[in-house]
Amino acid sequence: MKQTYAIVGLGRFGSSLLESLINADQEVLVIDKEPNLVEGYMDIATHAVIADAQDEDALRDLDLASFDHVVVAIGHNQQASILTTILLKDLGVRHVVAKAENNLHARVLDKVGADQVVRPESEMAHRLAEQLMTPNLLNFIDLGDKHSLGEIKIGNLRFANKEIEELDVRKQYGLTIISIRSQDRVVITPDPDEIIQVGDVLTVVGATKDVKHFESLVAKIR
Amino acid sequence: MKQTYAIVGLGRFGSSLLESLINADQEVLVIDKEPNLVEGYMDIATHAVIADAQDEDALRDLDLASFDHVVVAIGHNQQASILTTILLKDLGVRHVVAKAENNLHARVLDKVGADQVVRPESEMAHRLAEQLMTPNLLNFIDLGDKHSLGEIKIGNLRFANKEIEELDVRKQYGLTIISIRSQDRVVITPDPDEIIQVGDVLTVVGATKDVKHFESLVAKIR
Amino acid sequence: MKQTYAIVGLGRFGSSLLESLINADQEVLVIDKEPNLVEGYMDIATHAVIADAQDEDALRDLDLASFDHVVVAIGHNQQASILTTILLKDLGVRHVVAKAENNLHARVLDKVGADQVVRPESEMAHRLAEQLMTPNLLNFIDLGDKHSLGEIKIGNLRFANKEIEELDVRKQYGLTIISIRSQDRVVITPDPDEIIQVGDVLTVVGATKDVKHFESLVAKIR
Amino acid sequence: MKQTYAIVGLGRFGSSLLESLINADQEVLVIDKEPNLVEGYMDIATHAVIADAQDEDALRDLDLASFDHVVVAIGHNQQASILTTILLKDLGVRHVVAKAENNLHARVLDKVGADQVVRPESEMAHRLAEQLMTPNLLNFIDLGDKHSLGEIKIGNLRFANKEIEELDVRKQYGLTIISIRSQDRVVITPDPDEIIQVGDVLTVVGATKDVKHFESLVAKIR
Amino acid sequence: MKQTYAIVGLGRFGSSLLESLINADQEVLVIDKEPNLVEGYMDIATHAVIADAQDEDALRDLDLASFDHVVVAIGHNQQASILTTILLKDLGVRHVVAKAENNLHARVLDKVGADQVVRPESEMAHRLAEQLMTPNLLNFIDLGDKHSLGEIKIGNLRFANKEIEELDVRKQYGLTIISIRSQDRVVITPDPDEIIQVGDVLTVVGATKDVKHFESLVAKIR
Amino acid sequence: MKQTYAIVGLGRFGSSLLESLINADQEVLVIDKEPNLVEGYMDIATHAVIADAQDEDALRDLDLASFDHVVVAIGHNQQASILTTILLKDLGVRHVVAKAENNLHARVLDKVGADQVVRPESEMAHRLAEQLMTPNLLNFIDLGDKHSLGEIKIGNLRFANKEIEELDVRKQYGLTIISIRSQDRVVITPDPDEIIQVGDVLTVVGATKDVKHFESLVAKIR
Amino acid sequence: MKQTYAIVGLGRFGSSLLESLINADQEVLVIDKEPNLVEGYMDIATHAVIADAQDEDALRDLDLASFDHVVVAIGHNQQASILTTILLKDLGVRHVVAKAENNLHARVLDKVGADQVVRPESEMAHRLAEQLMTPNLLNFIDLGDKHSLGEIKIGNLRFANKEIEELDVRKQYGLTIISIRSQDRVVITPDPDEIIQVGDVLTVVGATKDVKHFESLVAKIR
Amino acid sequence: MKQTYAIVGLGRFGSSLLESLINADQEVLVIDKEPNLVEGYMDIATHAVIADAQDEDALRDLDLASFDHVVVAIGHNQQASILTTILLKDLGVRHVVAKAENNLHARVLDKVGADQVVRPESEMAHRLAEQLMTPNLLNFIDLGDKHSLGEIKIGNLRFANKEIEELDVRKQYGLTIISIRSQDRVVITPDPDEIIQVGDVLTVVGATKDVKHFESLVAKIR
Repeated sequence: MKQTYAIVGLGRFGSSLLESLINADQEVLVIDKEPNLVEGYMDIATHAVIADAQDEDALRDLDLASFDHVVVAIGHNQQASILTTILLKDLGVRHVVAKAENNLHARVLDKVGADQVVRPESEMAHRLAEQLMTPNLLNFIDLGDKHSLGEIKIGNLRFANKEIEELDVRKQYGLTIISIRSQDRVVITPDPDEIIQVGDVLTVVGATKDVKHFESLVAKIR
Repeated sequence: MKQTYAIVGLGRFGSSLLESLINADQEVLVIDKEPNLVEGYMDIATHAVIADAQDEDALRDLDLASFDHVVVAIGHNQQASILTTILLKDLGVRHVVAKAENNLHARVLDKVGADQVVRPESEMAHRLAEQLMTPNLLNFIDLGDKHSLGEIKIGNLRFANKEIEELDVRKQYGLTIISIRSQDRVVITPDPDEIIQVGDVLTVVGATKDVKHFESLVAKIR
Repeated sequence: MKQTYAIVGLGRFGSSLLESLINADQEVLVIDKEPNLVEGYMDIATHAVIADAQDEDALRDLDLASFDHVVVAIGHNQQASILTTILLKDLGVRHVVAKAENNLHARVLDKVGADQVVRPESEMAHRLAEQLMTPNLLNFIDLGDKHSLGEIKIGNLRFANKEIEELDVRKQYGLTIISIRSQDRVVITPDPDEIIQVGDVLTVVGATKDVKHFESLVAKIR
Repeated sequence: MKQTYAIVGLGRFGSSLLESLINADQEVLVIDKEPNLVEGYMDIATHAVIADAQDEDALRDLDLASFDHVVVAIGHNQQASILTTILLKDLGVRHVVAKAENNLHARVLDKVGADQVVRPESEMAHRLAEQLMTPNLLNFIDLGDKHSLGEIKIGNLRFANKEIEELDVRKQYGLTIISIRSQDRVVITPDPDEIIQVGDVLTVVGATKDVKHFESLVAKIR
Repeated sequence: MKQTYAIVGLGRFGSSLLESLINADQEVLVIDKEPNLVEGYMDIATHAVIADAQDEDALRDLDLASFDHVVVAIGHNQQASILTTILLKDLGVRHVVAKAENNLHARVLDKVGADQVVRPESEMAHRLAEQLMTPNLLNFIDLGDKHSLGEIKIGNLRFANKEIEELDVRKQYGLTIISIRSQDRVVITPDPDEIIQVGDVLTVVGATKDVKHFESLVAKIR
Repeated sequence: MKQTYAIVGLGRFGSSLLESLINADQEVLVIDKEPNLVEGYMDIATHAVIADAQDEDALRDLDLASFDHVVVAIGHNQQASILTTILLKDLGVRHVVAKAENNLHARVLDKVGADQVVRPESEMAHRLAEQLMTPNLLNFIDLGDKHSLGEIKIGNLRFANKEIEELDVRKQYGLTIISIRSQDRVVITPDPDEIIQVGDVLTVVGATKDVKHFESLVAKIR
Repeated sequence: MKQTYAIVGLGRFGSSLLESLINADQEVLVIDKEPNLVEGYMDIATHAVIADAQDEDALRDLDLASFDHVVVAIGHNQQASILTTILLKDLGVRHVVAKAENNLHARVLDKVGADQVVRPESEMAHRLAEQLMTPNLLNFIDLGDKHSLGEIKIGNLRFANKEIEELDVRKQYGLTIISIRSQDRVVITPDPDEIIQVGDVLTVVGATKDVKHFESLVAKIR
Repeated sequence: MKQTYAIVGLGRFGSSLLESLINADQEVLVIDKEPNLVEGYMDIATHAVIADAQDEDALRDLDLASFDHVVVAIGHNQQASILTTILLKDLGVRHVVAKAENNLHARVLDKVGADQVVRPESEMAHRLAEQLMTPNLLNFIDLGDKHSLGEIKIGNLRFANKEIEELDVRKQYGLTIISIRSQDRVVITPDPDEIIQVGDVLTVVGATKDVKHFESLVAKIR
């Protein structure tokens, strides 16, 4: 179902968000006080408006309360981000998402009423850290406190060239294999006689400690 | 296995990365030319050095070639990011990760030899767009061209209060349910008589189009 | 009873506040990140500290929670004023007074927990407006919705050179005369035969509309 | 009687003054050299003019000598404030009020002919100091050298729940009670059998030392 | 007789004044807040002090009231020049000379108590104008309303190669010749048979209109 | 005879020069690259042009070679002053007067061809020094190596209330009195019985050492 | 044969290049984002365009791929120079020449695809060094590893006033004389009886060490 | 013979010059007012001094008059370059080389006494223009008005694979071949039976028009 979005601030985050939403065929209004920036996105956004988001009258004229989501994507200017957020909630906007620069900023945004606070740089830094530390763990979903699902790349010969049955993954490692993916095939809920190769990616589910243990066993040896 | 990391640039991204790695008990050297910034992270990082990353001699003295990963987390100064990257590869660093501001910057980083290029703001913007558009699709893993795995929240009564068997998810929707998660339980590979509630989160696997169709059916009605 | 005060920010407002409190023999700690400013008030304040009030650790070290009042007198930097206020309340400061630049700033300060918000420039502007419009109304105290007390200067001959009795202020104008003050005497609850001169200042109490009416009658005629 | 005002400088003080005067239905001309500021107050002020107040010709064209009051509300630029003041007096303006930044500035303004000099930040800082030190003294009017009038809040049980007669305020404390005010009533010149409650506000008149002594007795005990 | 001088401000004017006074063997104290400037004149001035002339305490410590003359030679900063002047007069300095940027500045300096106000650029511009317009009038002294004394260069042959007697300057042109000066001689109150040459400089006294008329007759013909 | 002048640069010196020349009814063209400055003098100057004096084509278009005098009155920008001077001489301007900031600047201007170099601030500083040191020497003209003419104010009683004859100035002090000037009279070549008063101004001529000696005798005693 | 050139950046290098090419009757398009610069070269260049060379769309519109040579003459902004170079190669430009600020910059330009990299300041510095060290070696061409050709000025009498034959240059010094040039004649492949004078310039060819030895023998003696 | 050099200004040009001279084993003193720059070249230069070249005393202390060459390599600051040049000539420096930014600057440097003026950017731009226009003309030496020597690359088959004799270069084209150079040989004054290949570089001497004609015949055909 198509929804309506407004993005305040056309920096790197705001403009990337615009692009993702437009590619997904959504209706997006963008607002920035810098005419050059607004002009540059006129052909991409559904609507583009030059306005100062700290000016209550300007925000009211845009009827932002009628939008499904308003994202405050203002860059380094924490004051502008805070004042815009409080004005948007005053105007009755249902769902205000605000980008924070750091912890303290995030807390102020929360106090003044933001419905959701995002911190792109720190979240991506965390993902990069995870990926550098466990490069063969391609994806990881936390299923509650103790269970999880992992997408793991086979990096050494210990498990390679063997049938699933032979490995007895469920008994030996406490895991269920949900899928096997390689360059040229994807097998969902594979049969026991399926053979695993180096480079294959297994999706497994089980206790978190078992997933992590299995990941360390199949990691590439440097 | 503990590895060694060097981070060049202690802006928001660099400092968040440091924090994530240190929390995971890794060895991290941080480098910035701004003494105030370096001082602020002295107690957190394994080593902290004041140096200009565009100064070849300074980089050589730090013996960066012996590190497992060097991350160029320099902020807005594209020139510094490019020159540092080329110097690091000259010095024989195995794995250089560089943060890019935009597409063109990313391409130059690739040309001058970066092993991996990341774009935090645009990647996080894409994730936010996805999440705003499909709020009940909590996680999504692409398993090759046609299959995928989704973690989906039950948002309406259509599927609620019914046994899995009754719903016949595999036949009706082409999907396998891998787990059910609610506030107080996690069931891996659930039995057919398990009952689904509004608010439960199902992990399903199947053809991508089937996962997406199922997600739209169980979305919360506004 | 002597109390303890901390003032964050040594601009015009903060330094004037310091002076008033020190003149009244209070204990005052002043904090500013500008060393020159702090040095200039070292001999005046009880304690003077160079610190950045947006730095949580620095604030904690100062044990501000033990002070009776902490005044955030930061000048034009709204962001600093907001972040400092939220940090002070986190640290458990009982009574935080914050200076606001304008309405919106005042509202954010309130949301993030300020116990009292002051706006010096706008309050003084209001007082100046009152004084320019009714120059013979020297003081005015609002006693609830309908009554008030006014200190009024006699500016013309209508009431001058007459005894209070003769004027019959209570009956004619609904007011009680509490005091008469001139260059050389002050009479509290004056006798009926007291004579009023041009230039005398009367303190009267009564219905607000009666006080204002009386003020307009005795104003100097230009 | 409606008068005419001109305000030079539309900073926080000037704009707050404009608002107060317009709310009181006065005629106000505002002058600033910053077009954006003037535009923003065009709909509020009676007249709004873009002009440099240091330009003698510009001031003469505005016929400022015909105004009842001209307020020099220029902010941080002391030179502009001094030169404007001297020009205004040259042009024959009757009553020039000038805002000063500090003592020295105030003295220069006086020397070059300002009829009245105001210092908002320092006056408000003084009031705040008073209010923080004696929070139950809501208002205080100095009636000559030795007498004064105070509006005092009853903060403890010592005087509460007693009739005025019983307290014998006049004899015991040398004061006359002019009014009693609580949430729901205002009593002017109260009868002796009126009962005082914690939270009531008494207006008393008497010797200044007696007013202050009485205030300290009824203050809230922390 | 040797006197004592203090110069505040070491710009072009102040430093030139210092040099002239030191060359004439006077005692000169120089004051500037810029350490580099003060250092540069340390060996030249009798005393050189780094101080901010807007700081009353600093000025008092220098005991400026004991100096014969204090010159405020501050450059473009009119505010500093005004405040310094008022402070110096407060400290009891007998003779304060202040440099003004323009007419208005000069008037403020006069109002705040400067004993003498100088305007170098405009006075020199006036002299240059005079000299360009009447290049053969080398010097001119106004002796009251109607008389003057002029030093005039003979620029053409009309008066050249003639004896003073023959020219009959007194009768024909109403002037008395006080001296004749050429490359190689100076004759004071010359005899009537003295011969005048092209290039000689005559000092004449008489009615101003006669001096000017004579000057135009002897000017070089272009 | 009316001449033509061009002034490059409308700072304080250039604008004062313009004023002096226009008051003397001369034709003056002014040039500055700052439109606001040029506009401000449009009504005063004979012609006013917005042009960059470092642009050879712009200077050529103005036909400056046809002017009698061109004055380079550019302020602090030494480079602009040097380049403009060289361009003006290239264009064939007869008489280029250039204002210098200091000695070195003056020398460069001379080298690149300026016909006359003036240094207003330092020349006026020298005059002020002279005037402060010998306040009763109102004017002084150097007549060759050994003689001079001085305008001297009688500051004490030594010479006052005596006839010229009695004082025998010529014999005693080697000087000829050319004129006596007081508030209400001017006497040229005074008679021997003329009486001198305190406050009279004498114009005397003679050997320089005699003029200076006489000046010191009649100076006011402090 | 006339070719087509585009120059990006109109600084000193770019504008000098334009001039040289236009003087040689070539077709040159110039591009700069600074309108003033572009305007100044409009009459000189074949085409002049205001555009930002980091804007891919702008570059594409100019059809730069059809030009024979595109020179990136951007000044100090290394980032702009790098990004423009990569964009030009993407657009299919055959021959991209880029100006580098230093070694590192030169290497990046090479990596991102520049066909030729020039470093004007360092190349000219090298030539100046050569010329200062061997002022009588007017020109020098390296002919492979061991041979070279030099244009050498005769600076002393050792070789002067002698016939070539007598000097026996080929045998004594291993060199062939190709030409002799003086103020008034040029002799190509001179006869053996040609006489050499001080000040003559000889073009010689031979082993490099012989050319350098001969140069040192004929140098002017200081 | 080793000579002594001083370089004023350590920008790109000055530092490149330093490097070339030091590589040639010369003695070089470098001077800059920027401590960081001087420090960076301390180990390379013979002597490195922090000094302001506009300060006459500083220059005198360095005894620059004893150096063989002093190069004013100051970058964009034309005023500093001019003043330094005049000071150096005053101090008696024999040979002052000054770098100019443009034509006008070059002329001023000449007027104030520079012995040699260089313009790196414009000279290199000219060389690049030549090289782009005639890429097969590797070197060109002007031997007086009508003759010249050229180093020309054979770019097509017209002259390739033929003996010199057969080509009859002297008769057909009026040129003498001085040398032939290819990847693997250099032949000085080649024999008539030497064979020319595509890619060979010929050094020829003759009339300038013949050299240029020959160059166009052998150019690579695009």
